[in-house]
Amino acid sequence: MTKKGTLFVVSGPSAVGKGTICDELAGRGQVFLSVSMTTRPPRHGESDGKDYIFVSKEAFERTVSEGGFLEYAEVYGNYYGTPKTPVAERLDAGEDVVLEIDVQGAMKIKEHCPDGVFVFILPPSMEELRKRITGRAADTEKSIDLRLGKALREIGCIGGYDYYIVNERLETAVNRMEAIIEAARARVAEDAEALIRTYEEEGITCCIHQ
Amino acid sequence: MTKKGTLFVVSGPSAVGKGTICDELAGRGQVFLSVSMTTRPPRHGESDGKDYIFVSKEAFERTVSEGGFLEYAEVYGNYYGTPKTPVAERLDAGEDVVLEIDVQGAMKIKEHCPDGVFVFILPPSMEELRKRITGRAADTEKSIDLRLGKALREIGCIGGYDYYIVNERLETAVNRMEAIIEAARARVAEDAEALIRTYEEEGITCCIHQ
Repeated sequence: MTKKGTLFVVSGPSAVGKGTICDELAGRGQVFLSVSMTTRPPRHGESDGKDYIFVSKEAFERTVSEGGFLEYAEVYGNYYGTPKTPVAERLDAGEDVVLEIDVQGAMKIKEHCPDGVFVFILPPSMEELRKRITGRAADTEKSIDLRLGKALREIGCIGGYDYYIVNERLETAVNRMEAIIEAARARVAEDAEALIRTYEEEGITCCIHQ
Repeated sequence: MTKKGTLFVVSGPSAVGKGTICDELAGRGQVFLSVSMTTRPPRHGESDGKDYIFVSKEAFERTVSEGGFLEYAEVYGNYYGTPKTPVAERLDAGEDVVLEIDVQGAMKIKEHCPDGVFVFILPPSMEELRKRITGRAADTEKSIDLRLGKALREIGCIGGYDYYIVNERLETAVNRMEAIIEAARARVAEDAEALIRTYEEEGITCCIHQ
């Protein structure tokens, strides 16, 4: 039997750099990145199947009615969702999967996947986060304040996560994420059943089943 | 306030190589290795303060009566114990501490330190473990069988541990242990209070306290 993969859920405020961390991880060949489905139109430079799977409202609602999402939400009239099938297939094949998702989505997934590993990405400071948000040319002063306010509320939810990573230097942050993934692969809980079965075949009686 | 260190408890069958893994970790400057106290006489090549702290039965019993051990046990007429003070001092100073200890001792420590991280070292196979035990010249055929039987019983207790490491190649095993240590440093639970306090000073309301 193949050992199942682990689901890693990554959240953090807008502009904290979580996308870059996830891309870097995927680039190192460590994990499969889940791609969200959305009904919002593509922005300049976004490509279908990489940034999002862009679909019509009808196609999205059909997937909802078929129970095809791990979680989904409506934001400003657009739908966003995490398709269930590609995630389940990769996990069953023993691959680790990373979902980059907001706090509300993450907490919904936690209800269904308590064995998932939940990681929150923090900015070195709120001043630094403001700078990073300001650096994105598309934002007006008002939208910066809105996004900072949202960041504050999101950071307040860190207690629902297993791990945090302060994204000060990208390489250090990616290394820490790799350590979290490597450690998850060594969890007894992941393999307890398979391990215990192997030992019992060798005549080992297990005294603690957890 | 300094962030407290984490206690890592490492167990595994005799001759699995857990001592070598711990020494290698300490050599990389990652952790402080706790040294056990014992009333058994030093064996050839063992040095006081490094392999064990060798004390008289009277001194050991005095430490017991003062509540000075995290755990202790009597094995074949000799006492073995983990002194509380050096471990507590290092943890308070923010250092991570590694205890190499048998399954019974580990489970006693787990009762008092549920925040500790419990790691079990496994041999690649039972045949390989027999070879490693046989390789130790001091053992007779009978003592090899006794130790293999004990190994089987110990491996059966793996369900009480958080992580396992198969010690096939030393470097891979040490790297995995380092990942487990690095991940533990990123646990939200470790820092939730301190983090939340910092954010509240910045005006962030925390919605989930765990």
